[in-house]
Amino acid sequence: MSTPIKKFDKLLHGGDYNPDQWLDYPEILKQDIELMKKAHVNCVSLGIFAWATLEPEEGKYQFDWLEEVINNLYKEGIYTVLATPTGAMPKWLTEKYEEVRQVRENGVRNLSGGRHNFCYTSPVMREKAKAIDTELAKRFGNHPAVILWHISNELGGNGSDASCHCPLCQEAFREWLKNKYKSLDALNHAWWTKFWSHTYTSWDQIHSPAPNGVNFIHGLKLDWKRFVTAQTLEFYSKECETVKKYSTDIPVTTNMMEFFQCLDYFKFKDYVDIISWDAYPSWHDGKDDIDLAIRFAACHNIMRSIKKAPFLLMESTPSLTNWKPINTLKRPKMHMLSSMQAVAHGSNSVQYFQWRKSRGASEKLHGAVVDHFGKEDTRVFKDVTEVGTRLEALTDRIYKTINKPKVAIIFDWENWWAIDDAQGPNNIDMKYVETVTSHYKAFWQMGIDVDFIDMEQELDDYKLVIAPMTYMIKKKFGERVKEFVKDGGSFVSSYWSGIVDETDLCFLGGFPGIIGEVVGIRSEEIDAINENYPNSIHYNNKSYEVRDLCDLIHLQGAKAEGYYEKDFYEGRPALTRNEYGKGMSYYIAARTSDEFNRDFYGNLVNEIGIEKNMNINLPYGVTVAKRVGESEDFLFVQNFNSSPVSFELDKKYEIAEDGVEVSGKLELEAYGCIILKTLK
Amino acid sequence: MSTPIKKFDKLLHGGDYNPDQWLDYPEILKQDIELMKKAHVNCVSLGIFAWATLEPEEGKYQFDWLEEVINNLYKEGIYTVLATPTGAMPKWLTEKYEEVRQVRENGVRNLSGGRHNFCYTSPVMREKAKAIDTELAKRFGNHPAVILWHISNELGGNGSDASCHCPLCQEAFREWLKNKYKSLDALNHAWWTKFWSHTYTSWDQIHSPAPNGVNFIHGLKLDWKRFVTAQTLEFYSKECETVKKYSTDIPVTTNMMEFFQCLDYFKFKDYVDIISWDAYPSWHDGKDDIDLAIRFAACHNIMRSIKKAPFLLMESTPSLTNWKPINTLKRPKMHMLSSMQAVAHGSNSVQYFQWRKSRGASEKLHGAVVDHFGKEDTRVFKDVTEVGTRLEALTDRIYKTINKPKVAIIFDWENWWAIDDAQGPNNIDMKYVETVTSHYKAFWQMGIDVDFIDMEQELDDYKLVIAPMTYMIKKKFGERVKEFVKDGGSFVSSYWSGIVDETDLCFLGGFPGIIGEVVGIRSEEIDAINENYPNSIHYNNKSYEVRDLCDLIHLQGAKAEGYYEKDFYEGRPALTRNEYGKGMSYYIAARTSDEFNRDFYGNLVNEIGIEKNMNINLPYGVTVAKRVGESEDFLFVQNFNSSPVSFELDKKYEIAEDGVEVSGKLELEAYGCIILKTLK
Amino acid sequence: MSTPIKKFDKLLHGGDYNPDQWLDYPEILKQDIELMKKAHVNCVSLGIFAWATLEPEEGKYQFDWLEEVINNLYKEGIYTVLATPTGAMPKWLTEKYEEVRQVRENGVRNLSGGRHNFCYTSPVMREKAKAIDTELAKRFGNHPAVILWHISNELGGNGSDASCHCPLCQEAFREWLKNKYKSLDALNHAWWTKFWSHTYTSWDQIHSPAPNGVNFIHGLKLDWKRFVTAQTLEFYSKECETVKKYSTDIPVTTNMMEFFQCLDYFKFKDYVDIISWDAYPSWHDGKDDIDLAIRFAACHNIMRSIKKAPFLLMESTPSLTNWKPINTLKRPKMHMLSSMQAVAHGSNSVQYFQWRKSRGASEKLHGAVVDHFGKEDTRVFKDVTEVGTRLEALTDRIYKTINKPKVAIIFDWENWWAIDDAQGPNNIDMKYVETVTSHYKAFWQMGIDVDFIDMEQELDDYKLVIAPMTYMIKKKFGERVKEFVKDGGSFVSSYWSGIVDETDLCFLGGFPGIIGEVVGIRSEEIDAINENYPNSIHYNNKSYEVRDLCDLIHLQGAKAEGYYEKDFYEGRPALTRNEYGKGMSYYIAARTSDEFNRDFYGNLVNEIGIEKNMNINLPYGVTVAKRVGESEDFLFVQNFNSSPVSFELDKKYEIAEDGVEVSGKLELEAYGCIILKTLK
Repeated sequence: MSTPIKKFDKLLHGGDYNPDQWLDYPEILKQDIELMKKAHVNCVSLGIFAWATLEPEEGKYQFDWLEEVINNLYKEGIYTVLATPTGAMPKWLTEKYEEVRQVRENGVRNLSGGRHNFCYTSPVMREKAKAIDTELAKRFGNHPAVILWHISNELGGNGSDASCHCPLCQEAFREWLKNKYKSLDALNHAWWTKFWSHTYTSWDQIHSPAPNGVNFIHGLKLDWKRFVTAQTLEFYSKECETVKKYSTDIPVTTNMMEFFQCLDYFKFKDYVDIISWDAYPSWHDGKDDIDLAIRFAACHNIMRSIKKAPFLLMESTPSLTNWKPINTLKRPKMHMLSSMQAVAHGSNSVQYFQWRKSRGASEKLHGAVVDHFGKEDTRVFKDVTEVGTRLEALTDRIYKTINKPKVAIIFDWENWWAIDDAQGPNNIDMKYVETVTSHYKAFWQMGIDVDFIDMEQELDDYKLVIAPMTYMIKKKFGERVKEFVKDGGSFVSSYWSGIVDETDLCFLGGFPGIIGEVVGIRSEEIDAINENYPNSIHYNNKSYEVRDLCDLIHLQGAKAEGYYEKDFYEGRPALTRNEYGKGMSYYIAARTSDEFNRDFYGNLVNEIGIEKNMNINLPYGVTVAKRVGESEDFLFVQNFNSSPVSFELDKKYEIAEDGVEVSGKLELEAYGCIILKTLK
Repeated sequence: MSTPIKKFDKLLHGGDYNPDQWLDYPEILKQDIELMKKAHVNCVSLGIFAWATLEPEEGKYQFDWLEEVINNLYKEGIYTVLATPTGAMPKWLTEKYEEVRQVRENGVRNLSGGRHNFCYTSPVMREKAKAIDTELAKRFGNHPAVILWHISNELGGNGSDASCHCPLCQEAFREWLKNKYKSLDALNHAWWTKFWSHTYTSWDQIHSPAPNGVNFIHGLKLDWKRFVTAQTLEFYSKECETVKKYSTDIPVTTNMMEFFQCLDYFKFKDYVDIISWDAYPSWHDGKDDIDLAIRFAACHNIMRSIKKAPFLLMESTPSLTNWKPINTLKRPKMHMLSSMQAVAHGSNSVQYFQWRKSRGASEKLHGAVVDHFGKEDTRVFKDVTEVGTRLEALTDRIYKTINKPKVAIIFDWENWWAIDDAQGPNNIDMKYVETVTSHYKAFWQMGIDVDFIDMEQELDDYKLVIAPMTYMIKKKFGERVKEFVKDGGSFVSSYWSGIVDETDLCFLGGFPGIIGEVVGIRSEEIDAINENYPNSIHYNNKSYEVRDLCDLIHLQGAKAEGYYEKDFYEGRPALTRNEYGKGMSYYIAARTSDEFNRDFYGNLVNEIGIEKNMNINLPYGVTVAKRVGESEDFLFVQNFNSSPVSFELDKKYEIAEDGVEVSGKLELEAYGCIILKTLK
Repeated sequence: MSTPIKKFDKLLHGGDYNPDQWLDYPEILKQDIELMKKAHVNCVSLGIFAWATLEPEEGKYQFDWLEEVINNLYKEGIYTVLATPTGAMPKWLTEKYEEVRQVRENGVRNLSGGRHNFCYTSPVMREKAKAIDTELAKRFGNHPAVILWHISNELGGNGSDASCHCPLCQEAFREWLKNKYKSLDALNHAWWTKFWSHTYTSWDQIHSPAPNGVNFIHGLKLDWKRFVTAQTLEFYSKECETVKKYSTDIPVTTNMMEFFQCLDYFKFKDYVDIISWDAYPSWHDGKDDIDLAIRFAACHNIMRSIKKAPFLLMESTPSLTNWKPINTLKRPKMHMLSSMQAVAHGSNSVQYFQWRKSRGASEKLHGAVVDHFGKEDTRVFKDVTEVGTRLEALTDRIYKTINKPKVAIIFDWENWWAIDDAQGPNNIDMKYVETVTSHYKAFWQMGIDVDFIDMEQELDDYKLVIAPMTYMIKKKFGERVKEFVKDGGSFVSSYWSGIVDETDLCFLGGFPGIIGEVVGIRSEEIDAINENYPNSIHYNNKSYEVRDLCDLIHLQGAKAEGYYEKDFYEGRPALTRNEYGKGMSYYIAARTSDEFNRDFYGNLVNEIGIEKNMNINLPYGVTVAKRVGESEDFLFVQNFNSSPVSFELDKKYEIAEDGVEVSGKLELEAYGCIILKTLK
């Protein structure tokens, strides 16, 4: 369970605040606090990119302005999430010490400038980070207004591969490998280096993957990615240690990003007290917003699942982004809906980037609560105020509730890396994330909460585990699945599963237990189909289109429940079911459509008795998420359609905010979100 | 006003001639002159890329061949535009002195080879250029055949960012900045460097923008572009000084390019005696040629507007280019039409690149007057001869005439840079050039001449000033617009105006006078719409589609004349009109279509009494441009359709060449151009 | 004629075998041999990427494992093609001697890793290659199992430009140029370097073409490509010398690739004893497989034409590739058809890459005979076994037969380079390969065998020579064509021919003899048309669409047989015929469609009496290739349609395998291939 924020047992509402940009504008700083109060802001994040202002010269600290800001806010009841400022380095640091700047994959060291581009291995960088973190923690670590440490910012967000390829990192990588493999023989076998004479005969021959170097040894590439996560975590952990040393009861977090492939966020589980992340959905960029809503619901679920605890929405835009291809305004009500969606899935905050639009540089046109005009009479300011008001009304009751799913979908970073790095069968896009979210879609549509976990988590909490495209099967996961199904769990697997082990070596002589034994099939070959070779599967007297990938399998104990309908594998099994122990397992052999997933999972949840959050069929584009509390549960009924919907409720509820009773037909406006309460 | 070419008061017809490539082929050189006379060529440009031939070894000059060519041409009545040869450097120079070669944005210095790639800061390059320019000027500066200096060639055309990023340029940039800002504090504020801790604490931390360095500080990027223009101008000016020192009454020019974003051509105004440029429209690459004709009409207008004087078409292809994706032949009559279009808009020449096709290297397949076969019986040679004949017939009468528009459209390079560099609201393409030309299109269609000026020019000559997308508003421009409207002028502004000042800092507390006061509105937010959110505006009982960008505005004194028809801002103002002083101003809040622009500007010119060049409605694809002389005006009636058109004239005219009277129905063949004369 | 493989007068069936990857898995090695026998494998290629295993430390060789593998195979009747292992370098080599690693075009030296990336100039690399080749040849050069040397692997396949740009290569290039041109004056004229002042005044100013250096001198670029072929050949030849010194009667080969532009394979003619290549068609990636079948038929023909002798299919996939965008499974029968297609066009083998799927690294998912499961019960294993069985049945009879075409199509690498490097007239794609194969398509459809030769081969064997797009005309080719037509041959030329000589200098004063004299036309200009300017030609009372390029020509003795139907050149000649000596020549002025080519060449072969392999009109997608033997000929009747076809035979045949007589209607299943025998 997540460490609670002891000083602040409420839902947070506020966001990134960069007063360091406005120190020459005292009237602005004053106006900020007035406006924050009007907008029901109770908490801001400070100092994220302020290193140059906090330490204008090496070793010369200038913190008074920060203290004044914190105090002024605190006087008005506004708390501070305090950042360590390592997200961007000051010029004196990058110019004096070259080693702190990252080296790109092509071997070229960055110039000064930009952000998230420090070498996480560099002793100088670690020392300089420690120095300023120490000073910050000493000065503010026990300040009553400071409730949370915001360590660095969007780690790995260097706009490239999140990596530094400098000599220091090469050396650290070699040490990390020595520690992992002990001998070169073990490493050479694990990486299958006899391929193209890549055998390493000395540790110092090892270099990070590079387009003009080793680029086809997937074991190396996987391990490099693991190392990057580990080394980033090490840097991050040292910052945590520093600030915790001088502060009491202040938990740490670091803000994560949307399906960020470069860092394995599950590895942060034990090093972050409360998970936080930055969500920037491109609302209104498609025909409708449903699939995007589902993608972000999945993201929120991942964040909640890392620690199985409430998380923080640390950044979101109150209006629009400025860095997407086309930055469309949020339609009326969307800001409320999008904010409540986060809370519905377990967020204990709605925080924005940023409070006030910068005056210059590249984020000046990014949406903020206060614009350059500077007044409160804008649509955005009113939207934000409404969210603040609503959060405030519910804050004590929602704060300690959490979603408690009985369904888990496996989403595993290392598997994702391995799938995307492999050559074949489809090199355009293997669509791992898209596939995982397409399975989730069926549950979202039914109003069933789902956890997203990786192969290293326990399965005990669940009745149903879905493992799409587990190309890599980690050893312990195989064992855990066996136990899970033996004990009565239901397990769904799919095509492109069980191919390789953790070092990307193919299983020989048949796939390991999980597919052969639990699932009861053998895959012979996989057909990557293009638009000229359409296919479909027959299931429950209905035909469903499939696309992209069709696995040709043999039954080894399982029974076929669906069949291919076309091509030379017409009539061969495409969906199988296998009883195993007290449980059962399914194998979906081809990439199925939303329609199939809806029908298949609809039948499955009925069969195994998983309850929907509301016992009805929800209209298209509407979902219900449930936060469970000790005495009351909250149902977040969300309509992501741009038109109103209505449907019959299964029973009586109360409106969470005012206790008004509702039953019969529920009307939801376009982009509407109603919070209902059920009593235990 | 432009400095006239004293020795040559005629329309030029000829072009680039590279006899240095053919010195081993004396029969070719002889034939060239015979063919030139047949083609009515009266002027050629010499020596543009001849440095290696003129100075085969450092300090060893070899000019006799050039003198012989100039003399042989002159004997036959053909004059010379003499180039300084700095467009391409000889190998001995680039190999001996590394510093003369540019360094790219990625920090890598160019190898020898290519063109337009010298470091404009390098003292060695400046010295070597001065040395050969001095020798050339001494030898030819008073030659009776030499009428114009052609300084270097297509400055900045390095195929990249027109910049050199070498250490010498970095140092020069820092000096330029010190001179501009005086203190780092001023620079840091202007660039808003506290953003992401980019604060500079020492001048030598400043480096040109780089993808692996500072790339998000737009103030830096703007200043770098300004510096590149300034430094290029400095190099160019020194060449001018050198040649002028040894020559009498020979004006200077340098050939410019089509919408060349890298250099702010308006800054050349006072350093070029007569503007010249190279026009290469891709005729026949679309469904029709109308929009392309308008784009190039706009370019010609820009060139004329820089000095408000006749300019030279310095290069054009007599047949086809060889470097566009698909190089389609000019259809019959298009060569004449395209050449006359230039003259119609103020060109005093039709010059070609090049006289004779090279035998080898990458321009050998580029269209030229004489092909490899070498005879005069080709379609191209006949087309060129016809143009030469026509120019000759009109030369004395047209030479001193010029277009005198009452309408100006603001086209500002720094604004263009700022718009394209900014993040948001649409990062695919903000379409500044496209938008500017789309406003112009309405006038082209009506047969009304238009100047294109930047924000630094005077507005006194005009009755109507149109300022589309003036994202950046320069201080003096704001003041000038106020005066202009107060005094009775009409001003049209649009969405995405008035956001930032000259260092790309956003205006705080409301936009400056021009939008708030003169235009009388306030913009709250802007919606970047995609194809799923179509919108339209209602104006004069008609509905007009809008696209890409919709500004949501509040009236602050202005009256709404048009309204949005859809989405959540249905009914809000989309077109406003504000009376101010004796004049009035309009604000177009969304990106409008050609149809709207035509109707809106059609009404506007009627209202404020701007005369069309012919008092009729021209058919689609037909325009009329007017060159005004002391005693007679010339109307160039141009049909860019691939089919004939006819229409009723408003009154009697004479055919310019032969004085034949025309009235009633005028017939124009496909791609036809008729020149009519009106008497005062 | 090709040197026969003396030790092995059979069709080869087998492929790449990499036991070095499996030395730790003795049960796998044992199983391999058992499975090979079941699959009718008689020959494998060994050691291709085994350098690191063969020489784990510098100078320390470890060959016992290889000898054991060879012996174990030989005991079971399986022969060995033995590779020199230079395709991939061991780490000790690349780390100790930097110079062996290639330098890319951008001047950056590769890191260690990858393959086909050695510097072919490096003395160290040549020495180390010689050392291991010597040891291998001494040990295995007279081993009874070893039948062929497989020198290196896919030379030039570095994934870039097949070049090394290191200082050693620059110096070698300069020497090569000195040897070719003798003087800088000659080089400067040949490269037309006065263009843009590129004149070289010292040999050491010469550098390979580079994006940031000389990139517009096509003579340099052509010579660089010639040098790369020459230098690669020199490296290769030295390997041949080494292995031949210690072995008796073992011919050499090196495996080539599909339309590999970087190396001029015709230059390998005299240095390779038997041509071999690697064919990877993307079957089933389009609406049908016909054009792809024709493209690969053309490739096979090129391989046969290099030495006018049987060649080896050295690699092909038994199932699917893993490196194409989408890797679709071969449909049933396609493996047999694709294998037989190679044999039909002259291959004496069907070899696979690879025998067994790697366990790790990037080729682990590439199709192989044996998969990770490791059993023989797969579709692929059965397909392979069927091919092996069929080859075995025919091996003695087919081995010495060969196709004997009377038609040749000119396909010239240097011309290809020159066309693609030139600027204009269409810079998107001049489609040289596509055009050459589109002419071939007419013959494939008729069932007529065709040779593909370059401009340096003799024409004596042919009745018809087709030379599409001979932009460059080599001197001797011009003379040879004259003789050929004078003596009664038929010659077909096309648009974009006769423009430049061998150094890419344009012909002056009219094109050389071949076009002007033999063909009897003059080209004035060429129109690169886009979709807005459709055109067609009228021929034999029918209208045929043309596209992309339309040459506007004048008759100079030739007669028009076809005319343009549209645009300003309507009515001008588009197809001409010229009698010359005893023969005649045609000129096709525009890019014609398959339909035109079919009709035109159908008429032509009738007229000049070229026989089809079967005297009937074949159905769409069906072809017949003929291998001619001393006593019997074999007709390979191939159906590339995904549905069955049937047609009437012209006479009686026998089924090759069993002698069963067939006549009347022949039924071919989907993707079917029947081999018929005719007696002399």
